Amino acid sequence: MSQSNRQLHLNLFIMNAGHHEAAWRHQGTEPHNITDIEYFTRLAKTAEAAKFDSLFLADGLAINNNIKHGAFIGLEPFTLLSALASVTQRIGLIGTVSTTYNEPFHVARKFASLDHISKGRAGWNIVTSGSSVEANNFSKDTHLAHSKRYERANEFLQVTTGLWNSWEDDALIIDRDSGTFADHRKVRSIDHVGDSFKVRGPLNIPRSPQGYPVLVQAGSSEDGKEFAAQYAEAIFTAQQTLQEAQRFYSDVKSRLAHYGRTADQLLILPGICPIIGHTESEAKEKEQELNELTVIDYGLTQLSHMLNVDLFTYPLDGKLPELPRLEEINGNKSRFQLVVDLAAREDLTIRQLLHRLAGGRGHRTFAGTALQIADQLEEWFVNGASDGFNVMPPYLPAGLEEFAEQVIPELQRRGLFRREYSGHTLREHFGLARPANPHSIASAPAAASQAAASL
Amino acid sequence: MSQSNRQLHLNLFIMNAGHHEAAWRHQGTEPHNITDIEYFTRLAKTAEAAKFDSLFLADGLAINNNIKHGAFIGLEPFTLLSALASVTQRIGLIGTVSTTYNEPFHVARKFASLDHISKGRAGWNIVTSGSSVEANNFSKDTHLAHSKRYERANEFLQVTTGLWNSWEDDALIIDRDSGTFADHRKVRSIDHVGDSFKVRGPLNIPRSPQGYPVLVQAGSSEDGKEFAAQYAEAIFTAQQTLQEAQRFYSDVKSRLAHYGRTADQLLILPGICPIIGHTESEAKEKEQELNELTVIDYGLTQLSHMLNVDLFTYPLDGKLPELPRLEEINGNKSRFQLVVDLAAREDLTIRQLLHRLAGGRGHRTFAGTALQIADQLEEWFVNGASDGFNVMPPYLPAGLEEFAEQVIPELQRRGLFRREYSGHTLREHFGLARPANPHSIASAPAAASQAAASL
Repeated sequence: MSQSNRQLHLNLFIMNAGHHEAAWRHQGTEPHNITDIEYFTRLAKTAEAAKFDSLFLADGLAINNNIKHGAFIGLEPFTLLSALASVTQRIGLIGTVSTTYNEPFHVARKFASLDHISKGRAGWNIVTSGSSVEANNFSKDTHLAHSKRYERANEFLQVTTGLWNSWEDDALIIDRDSGTFADHRKVRSIDHVGDSFKVRGPLNIPRSPQGYPVLVQAGSSEDGKEFAAQYAEAIFTAQQTLQEAQRFYSDVKSRLAHYGRTADQLLILPGICPIIGHTESEAKEKEQELNELTVIDYGLTQLSHMLNVDLFTYPLDGKLPELPRLEEINGNKSRFQLVVDLAAREDLTIRQLLHRLAGGRGHRTFAGTALQIADQLEEWFVNGASDGFNVMPPYLPAGLEEFAEQVIPELQRRGLFRREYSGHTLREHFGLARPANPHSIASAPAAASQAAASL
Repeated sequence: MSQSNRQLHLNLFIMNAGHHEAAWRHQGTEPHNITDIEYFTRLAKTAEAAKFDSLFLADGLAINNNIKHGAFIGLEPFTLLSALASVTQRIGLIGTVSTTYNEPFHVARKFASLDHISKGRAGWNIVTSGSSVEANNFSKDTHLAHSKRYERANEFLQVTTGLWNSWEDDALIIDRDSGTFADHRKVRSIDHVGDSFKVRGPLNIPRSPQGYPVLVQAGSSEDGKEFAAQYAEAIFTAQQTLQEAQRFYSDVKSRLAHYGRTADQLLILPGICPIIGHTESEAKEKEQELNELTVIDYGLTQLSHMLNVDLFTYPLDGKLPELPRLEEINGNKSRFQLVVDLAAREDLTIRQLLHRLAGGRGHRTFAGTALQIADQLEEWFVNGASDGFNVMPPYLPAGLEEFAEQVIPELQRRGLFRREYSGHTLREHFGLARPANPHSIASAPAAASQAAASL
């Protein structure tokens, strides 16, 4: 695709009542519906009608705060995505599953199932989990160290890709006359033996429409970037400024060659929490209104958790106290660094920082008109900072509807975004090739092999 | 409900192309569609239109045979059920999940999600897994011993019920004005510490419509029956004769009192694989036709696995060789005993036994007219052998359609089966009470407590 036809990719990041931490207090949101499938069905259908590439659900494996003033609770994302697969036709479905508290056989199998059920629309956001309260729900006293989590994640991906490739695409025969159900030579054990896992295989489900789900990653630490360069096909990342985003973009893309990959095999999608007004001042007022609905206790708990320091003992209108060093952080390292940099760059008090983070928990918040937002997206997109965006509406469903009705048509007018889906699978939306099965390549004659590679 | 109004309960056990091991070779089945959601949607809608209480999906965590002539493979049941929840309104959705290869936090959370998504239609068929090939997919060299699996299952249920009760039903407040999201006094840690698990909780999803999913169990060994008496609300069981079924029925029901439970708190649903003909001889011909489609190699592998002996070295037209003792069986103990008894009672050769097992893997197969089948079901139902049945069509979708069009109307004419759903949840279909939350009872004033208990 020529540079001038380059299209941006939009993922809708769905978060209960919305991404702003006070969304549930905002008129028009539906916090009572966060366990109601019909609510999420409406959101998914709106996103599909707007031609989003995909929708995405985050996850956590524990409640990590006093839930009095809010909490990230609700439907388990994988269960929810599968239910949404039945009521949508085109939009990609990306679910978060942790490699730290799961078994690769289950995960490989469930994503293969979701990919079959959705006819090729599954994506896996690979996380390593970030908090000790999660460990406590899985018979562990302490959280695995950051680098150990990535070692485990790495081996986890070896096992899951091995399992997804354990069936060649044409292994199922189903010849009634001869009684041949499958070609047993095309279904193989993987016999993986490693530090964390010992898995025999094969998987008990045939290879799925996409070969395997689109692999997505959201960690932006050193370990995270290296992991992404090796495995990820899309990255969700939090970037506050154009310069930071450009640096991250070129850093990650430059790491791909080492793994024999090209820059177009990995999409970088920074988060954006767009607060949309008919005028700039209306947008700023909306932002102000939302920030005034926040509950200080809630925000302080989240920020204390992010920074690994108890902020309740410091004055709200003072600056951040001395913080732990990055090496001591065993949660989300890159988010820690982002918050520290943000507070320093903008010289923020704790209260001001709470407001800056309320919209997107570290992801960029931008309040303006639809045109201004389209300008911002285009600026990042054409200046080497992104391949598209992870769109995080501050409140739902209205924040999504405003984006769909105002920003997307503007991006379409500029020729930056599709008016209709051209493909059917998430890989097709993202412009990613279907992974060839290494066994098929090895066993096929040259011509057939070439055909497989070009799929 | 008076004895005369007693209604039987019907569960549809869905198995890919059908329960007969040669179903995939039978004209009219759709083995190419076993990974296609639209195929399963059609089956679910047919079952719902016929007013089945529920549909059920079995599971295995490995391929345990050479797949040349057939295999139990396909969509992961939980993923599939969630997708079916979106396209059905009334029918219960029962999924199999193993307590041996899963974490209770994940399982509690996923079933709570499915129960929310389906608005109260979730059921969990609790299994402990039965084969060492499954162990090999989960970093274990050998399979956990039978009694150890049940010890783990027992603790697993303590944890999951604890987690399901960790939210009181009215814990979510969502008061926008005061900024009160939840009543934090009504959401509790469980702080479970046991031999197999250490789980802090609470669950990160509010209590679901049914309180928790209907708990189903399918093991009929000593350990299995005792586990069922303590926890199960429905049992799927394989019983070949009226007498055996009556013995099992009264045995299990008599164990409930020990756990402070009454006989009506547990439904016993024996399996039936009905082969339906317009005449008896047509039905027998159908059965014969199906049996002739079986592949000996496939059946022998399954039977060798069930009996823990390599049958390939014995003559097909001879009797079973000497078998291991029941104590040495670490798979499905009750199924082992059933097959041994069946072969002895009917004095079967190995080949004859293979045919007797081809329809339902040990579950009862009955070939006859719709009237004869209704007679059989009624006989068991009114003579203390069952509260309903686990219906296992030999081939799909036609075997289900025949049952829905011919047998169910006959059961309705006899006043034995509903013509319309009267309830909305699976508990309502099964006539089971919604479990009260022990925390709510403890903390509520007397009057409120009574109201909660009668829910």
